[in-house]
Amino acid sequence: MSKIIFALPQNNALAITLADKLKVEIGLADIRNFPDGETYIRIDSDVKDKIIILVFHLDHPNNHFLSLIFLTAELKKLGAKKICLVAPYLPYMRQDTQFKPGEAVTAILFAKLLSSYIDELITIDPHLHRIKNLSEIYSVPTILLHATKPIAEWIKNNVKNPLIIGPDEESTQWVEAVARYADAPYVIVKKIRHGDRKVSVTLPEINDTQKTPVLVDDIISTGMSMCAVIKQLLDKQFKNPICIGVHALFNKDDYQNLMQAGAQTIISCDTISHPSNEIDISDLLIEGIKKC
Amino acid sequence: MSKIIFALPQNNALAITLADKLKVEIGLADIRNFPDGETYIRIDSDVKDKIIILVFHLDHPNNHFLSLIFLTAELKKLGAKKICLVAPYLPYMRQDTQFKPGEAVTAILFAKLLSSYIDELITIDPHLHRIKNLSEIYSVPTILLHATKPIAEWIKNNVKNPLIIGPDEESTQWVEAVARYADAPYVIVKKIRHGDRKVSVTLPEINDTQKTPVLVDDIISTGMSMCAVIKQLLDKQFKNPICIGVHALFNKDDYQNLMQAGAQTIISCDTISHPSNEIDISDLLIEGIKKC
Repeated sequence: MSKIIFALPQNNALAITLADKLKVEIGLADIRNFPDGETYIRIDSDVKDKIIILVFHLDHPNNHFLSLIFLTAELKKLGAKKICLVAPYLPYMRQDTQFKPGEAVTAILFAKLLSSYIDELITIDPHLHRIKNLSEIYSVPTILLHATKPIAEWIKNNVKNPLIIGPDEESTQWVEAVARYADAPYVIVKKIRHGDRKVSVTLPEINDTQKTPVLVDDIISTGMSMCAVIKQLLDKQFKNPICIGVHALFNKDDYQNLMQAGAQTIISCDTISHPSNEIDISDLLIEGIKKC
Repeated sequence: MSKIIFALPQNNALAITLADKLKVEIGLADIRNFPDGETYIRIDSDVKDKIIILVFHLDHPNNHFLSLIFLTAELKKLGAKKICLVAPYLPYMRQDTQFKPGEAVTAILFAKLLSSYIDELITIDPHLHRIKNLSEIYSVPTILLHATKPIAEWIKNNVKNPLIIGPDEESTQWVEAVARYADAPYVIVKKIRHGDRKVSVTLPEINDTQKTPVLVDDIISTGMSMCAVIKQLLDKQFKNPICIGVHALFNKDDYQNLMQAGAQTIISCDTISHPSNEIDISDLLIEGIKKC
């Protein structure tokens, strides 16, 4: 069955890259906002019986979500066979339980909502914490990709004598994979969270200060955990560490804070548009799209 | 059954006014966005078996719509009996048909979506054009209020010798009501639309240039129609007209253009927050809320 790629205008660059590499048609659509903030959508390609690859960045999702709903509804109305959403970063995974009574568990609500408009979801390293598997909350099939290989590749090409440092025990498997692909040793930090912006971290005994510490994590948002690890590394006379995140979610201030804390450089995958983007995830997405 | 009022933080002023006038409890809720743009919601009042009056401005709706979904879902989960949405301005009423193939008819899609999260809708003078009745697209009951009386009241108190001028033939009934309550004569403009920002208008024969022209309309957005009418009135040696809209939807530029075209003043109801707001709609909303 033939595939066709659609994207929001702001996601066109990635859509074109994917279409080029996959030799798949790009769908023509007029998607824009009226001056009153309402969305206008017109599909101008034949989508009947086709598999839609919908490239849609979902970081900072609120403002775009109605467009996603309208777009998928119209594609279905025009006879699309299947809508496969490519969302490199999956939002609303952090409020995954009720910490206080009366809290909306937005991870569940968002998953239920999104599942009702798409047929399949492709995403990269979602933040799985209390929810261990996307199938617990998504009723549609999900193709979950890991940025471990592209990150490892970047480390191999850019860092001499790296020591990979994982942020917490839950990430062990993921960090181990990065280290294995990068052919480098790794250690895992013990992290205890004391609130939204307060964490304490304990580094294991590591003595080889000639190595270049490479901190890796799925999301860099406040960067607080990384800052705490950097401080301990510098106290132990390590070199300034390299910080790598899959998803560069931080505010500008958080990025500056991390640099000021002593990061040598901050690198991210281009799942969320950010000046730190250095690691291309298009080949990874293609692995997923081929399974659609 | 007891009522309780909830609102987004930015709609608190209206919620407090309504709660005061109705002697109804204001619900406590923590509604805010995380730095990553995701919404956090916590309901802190007992809502079990209560009727929720949800005050939620829906102009420029995209950015707030997920909050509405999460909030209503959590209220229902906590046992709310009925959710009555008070949306003074109802968005997505203008794309009410397919003008070109492949266009998403967002009026229908939005109505279907909204209907699945609320039990009743209260709104003021929605833009009914090709859709003649909200029940054609909303599957929940709707209470439709008209700002004709508050507008007429304002005209009576502020304009000497007014001549009410309606924007098009479709608005005749509404304009006639304003004129009747204001105890003033009225005429209706013949309008022909040639595109998004181009209209031609024909004024009927009116000779009493001593009257103060008062242009009334449901929405002022581009203000193009009003500008065209103003030009003709000034050509005929009328005084600079007063422009009144129920919903002040315009961009800043459009407002300036209307003033520069020769409006004496621009007045609106406070259904959408705007410097032109002069006409309070809280008593009108109360009429509707009492029917919930």
